[in-house]
Amino acid sequence: MRTHTCGQVDQALLDQEIELVGWVNRRRDHGGVIFVDLRDRDGLVQVVFDPDDPEMFAVAETLRNEFVIQVRGRVRNRPEGTENPNIRSGQIEVLGLSLTVLNRAEPLPFQLDDERVSEDVRLRYRYLDLRRPEMLERLRLRHRVTSAMRRFLDDAGFIDVETPVLTKATPEGARDYLVPSRTHPGEFFALPQSPQLFKQLLMVSGLERYYQIVKCFRDEDLRADRQPEFTQLDLEMSFADEATVMGLIENMMRHLFIEAVEVALPDPLPRLTWHEAMRRFGSDKPDLRIPLELVDVADLVKDVDFKVFSGPANDPRGRVAALHVPGGGKMPRSQIDDYTKYVSIFGAKGLAYIKVNDAAAGREGLQSPILKFLTDEAVAGIMERTNAADGDLIFFGADKAKIVNEALGALRVRLGHDLDMVEHGYQALWVVDFPMFEYDEKDGRHYALHHPFTAPHPDDVDQLESDPENVRSRAYDFVLNGYELGGGSVRIHDPALQQRVFTQLGIDENEANDKFGFLLDALKYGAPPMAGVAFGLDRIAMLMSGATSIRDVIAFPKTQSAACLLTDAPGEIDPAALRELSIRVRLPPKESKEDKG
Amino acid sequence: MRTHTCGQVDQALLDQEIELVGWVNRRRDHGGVIFVDLRDRDGLVQVVFDPDDPEMFAVAETLRNEFVIQVRGRVRNRPEGTENPNIRSGQIEVLGLSLTVLNRAEPLPFQLDDERVSEDVRLRYRYLDLRRPEMLERLRLRHRVTSAMRRFLDDAGFIDVETPVLTKATPEGARDYLVPSRTHPGEFFALPQSPQLFKQLLMVSGLERYYQIVKCFRDEDLRADRQPEFTQLDLEMSFADEATVMGLIENMMRHLFIEAVEVALPDPLPRLTWHEAMRRFGSDKPDLRIPLELVDVADLVKDVDFKVFSGPANDPRGRVAALHVPGGGKMPRSQIDDYTKYVSIFGAKGLAYIKVNDAAAGREGLQSPILKFLTDEAVAGIMERTNAADGDLIFFGADKAKIVNEALGALRVRLGHDLDMVEHGYQALWVVDFPMFEYDEKDGRHYALHHPFTAPHPDDVDQLESDPENVRSRAYDFVLNGYELGGGSVRIHDPALQQRVFTQLGIDENEANDKFGFLLDALKYGAPPMAGVAFGLDRIAMLMSGATSIRDVIAFPKTQSAACLLTDAPGEIDPAALRELSIRVRLPPKESKEDKG
Repeated sequence: MRTHTCGQVDQALLDQEIELVGWVNRRRDHGGVIFVDLRDRDGLVQVVFDPDDPEMFAVAETLRNEFVIQVRGRVRNRPEGTENPNIRSGQIEVLGLSLTVLNRAEPLPFQLDDERVSEDVRLRYRYLDLRRPEMLERLRLRHRVTSAMRRFLDDAGFIDVETPVLTKATPEGARDYLVPSRTHPGEFFALPQSPQLFKQLLMVSGLERYYQIVKCFRDEDLRADRQPEFTQLDLEMSFADEATVMGLIENMMRHLFIEAVEVALPDPLPRLTWHEAMRRFGSDKPDLRIPLELVDVADLVKDVDFKVFSGPANDPRGRVAALHVPGGGKMPRSQIDDYTKYVSIFGAKGLAYIKVNDAAAGREGLQSPILKFLTDEAVAGIMERTNAADGDLIFFGADKAKIVNEALGALRVRLGHDLDMVEHGYQALWVVDFPMFEYDEKDGRHYALHHPFTAPHPDDVDQLESDPENVRSRAYDFVLNGYELGGGSVRIHDPALQQRVFTQLGIDENEANDKFGFLLDALKYGAPPMAGVAFGLDRIAMLMSGATSIRDVIAFPKTQSAACLLTDAPGEIDPAALRELSIRVRLPPKESKEDKG
Repeated sequence: MRTHTCGQVDQALLDQEIELVGWVNRRRDHGGVIFVDLRDRDGLVQVVFDPDDPEMFAVAETLRNEFVIQVRGRVRNRPEGTENPNIRSGQIEVLGLSLTVLNRAEPLPFQLDDERVSEDVRLRYRYLDLRRPEMLERLRLRHRVTSAMRRFLDDAGFIDVETPVLTKATPEGARDYLVPSRTHPGEFFALPQSPQLFKQLLMVSGLERYYQIVKCFRDEDLRADRQPEFTQLDLEMSFADEATVMGLIENMMRHLFIEAVEVALPDPLPRLTWHEAMRRFGSDKPDLRIPLELVDVADLVKDVDFKVFSGPANDPRGRVAALHVPGGGKMPRSQIDDYTKYVSIFGAKGLAYIKVNDAAAGREGLQSPILKFLTDEAVAGIMERTNAADGDLIFFGADKAKIVNEALGALRVRLGHDLDMVEHGYQALWVVDFPMFEYDEKDGRHYALHHPFTAPHPDDVDQLESDPENVRSRAYDFVLNGYELGGGSVRIHDPALQQRVFTQLGIDENEANDKFGFLLDALKYGAPPMAGVAFGLDRIAMLMSGATSIRDVIAFPKTQSAACLLTDAPGEIDPAALRELSIRVRLPPKESKEDKG
């Protein structure tokens, strides 16, 4: 139906007759002539209809925005002074010779380029929202990324294998999406949170190198920027250790950044241990674009007469840390109050600070509500260790280490953005040597920081039972600009070691057989050493495209309440269909205000 | 951990020291020496451990089948007379210099090469079943197919876009798998039967060329060789008609067959109209490898004094057809009885036949229980039209056309296999000009033969209301060796025409807005002409790999009752989790034999 796409038309086609199809992006009437900006997925071309051909001109007069048309015309130079340097076809225009309306369009519910339109309206008319060139370009970028990823892995000998979507509920995971079975009344499938167990089984099968770009599902409350269904690159290798997998993935990511956005990541990427990341950035996914760091000051304040500091400083699970903010001294009190409120979200009970007016003047040059509680030595020590200068600000966190890290880690990121300190570009790194377990004070038990199939560090295996909290795992995370893009680990391939780890997680042999029997069986029949990784594709595409939400790189995303405004899913179902599935709806009792009165 | 894979080792490495990893495929002790066939995903190598190194030899003595080991050794020629020409490494062996056991293996629950093991046991231990080289090779073939498919479509400018898995129930389709929503109590998502509506919306968005290799779901009773989740290539193009799509797909399939199995399909592929396919083969997915055809004989028997023939011959919805079986005259009566039973599955009330003993002798040379009912003219006409010769057999079908086609169509295929008439290789074709609607006598209404978004043939649009059963659609099916591998159509892009088709299907405007409102909306805002296709990937991989079931090309398939024997899914769920989803189990009342007594 066309000889060229709109994006292909330029001065090289001068005086040629071409055929185009596309949408009327804009129609203008000027000097008795009709101008149409014709749009297809590749670009825009200006088409001119003049009244010499009255029949064609009459059709042109019916054109409205978003009509779908087919045009035959001759390429000519635009009149001098009317060129548009912003588009490839900006030097030329197409003189219409014939015109066919392929489909009409009613006026759209909103203007495509109107930025005030709410996201809800855009999601309801997602098919129109996707007409915006920047949205279309994001979908294309995402495709370039997955395509480059696949080619890279195909060439490296990986085999793409599909694993089931209708599968078994995940023990020890987040909440599953469930699917009632019709043929097994009263029983349910679960949608996979990841193909973890299947990929380990494929290694037991001898597949050696597996990958899949696969939808995964979690029925979580959608904080921040999560989707109930998300896509991950899932990968597993036999006869491989952490060095093999990290090396492969580094090369792949460097390749993707070159292919998709022409950015060269450093080779090799920096690596931080989990402990160093927490110490310096209060986070296991530090955003290295922000030039702020935490420093420990517990040793300086452990004897001060100020319980807020000395308490945590003397608690083995406590931490006292300072966050030095160059130039932060100008910050008004109200802003500090805001930040105090902000860190309270993470459980911090306050946000102590010192403003540095005149560093050379000692205590006199400082301004702080807590100054009176600190000894001269403590103050001098803090000044020296933070390297704070005139006009700077120092924030403090003092509490359980977990709270200090979360509060100051988040404050660090927020300050970076508020004070416009975020460097441009991409900062990627690996975080390694994670702890194997996390102790939950509430439940009084250990949880796996990665997942229960992660191997312990060989140097620490002996302390699995005696000192579990200091056992490192063979896990690794890939972090980019403060996002955890992916992570993985060397897996346990020895069934006895797997049971020791289960025991440490409070899962005895019976329960283990019940929940993971088929995996434990598989490990008995010749499981090779193996390691793997899972990467979040939505986040990769988001960061590469400069979008601020993963919704912008998903064609048909869901809202925060996990609904699709376009199709109006989920929806009610005929009770007869539910009966076939041996289930019925049981609505929670409605809370009536009258009753409560 | 290795310098080579087992599949890479051959005489080129003679006298070199190499490292290998893999599984002990077999261990033999012979003449005081231990032989191990070492297996990895690429092949087998014979490793020899001799007692010169007592420490290594002691380890070698512990080896059992399926142990995972790492070996360093030197490549040397096998002793004369012990070469194995069937494997690449058959001229050489590796003299073990060091040996590490990476993992032990208990005795397997079955021998991998034991063909008597039931499919249930193989499915329960699928990870062991997949160790069989032929199973691994099927997964690799499947990957080669999808990979070649993706590269072909990427290069043709198609964009891979993911559509939702949690979506809205399908009106007018098969039974959906449902997913209760936690955040919208009493409401349900459905898993997609196909991304049909989403891909049409993407065309409205201006994506122009979309594809996806995507899981789809149907909660059907699993006749024959179906799976509750299956994978399809889904594709859609804007500004395209049937010729464009069929041309593209033909080229793609030719490319795939060359790339994956080195088979050249003809160019162009043959095309049959739906009517011709039904007339000659009684099927809209004829297996052209079988050299048998149906011929119509209604005109010859419409006046005979035999209601079984004359009734259907005079019924406009009836058909009388003959199936000529060369050499079938030797068939014993018991076999004909079997076939009579077989066609009764499809509703045929009998299976008339004529055996041709001596064609030159006229009636006298024929043998048939129905001969007495036929006039001389009818007999002569049948003999002439079927071209039957001495020793042949002619079967007859006479009933509603639908029944005759199904019965003789199936009998044709069965005869082809039973009489060993199936030609080798691949026979691909297109079937076109399908009827738009199928009339269901039971429901007294029309159903869409493809789906309700398929465009009618432009020459037949005027008869949509007056003569719906003779309206052809713009649908096309790709058929290979009797399997419908894929199908598609030009879509309706005009909302008024879409509503006319809905009306013909008994869906009024209110119901249409209710069920397909977002699509009808989308068609109003500038929908381009579009056409597309969906291809079953499991079937393609099955046919290419020579497997007889799609279960053999799916890593973790389900049984006929839609269960996974490996993970034991589906399973029971904690009632608390169901409460969160606002559903409860309601088991169907148990049918007790006592009560019925």
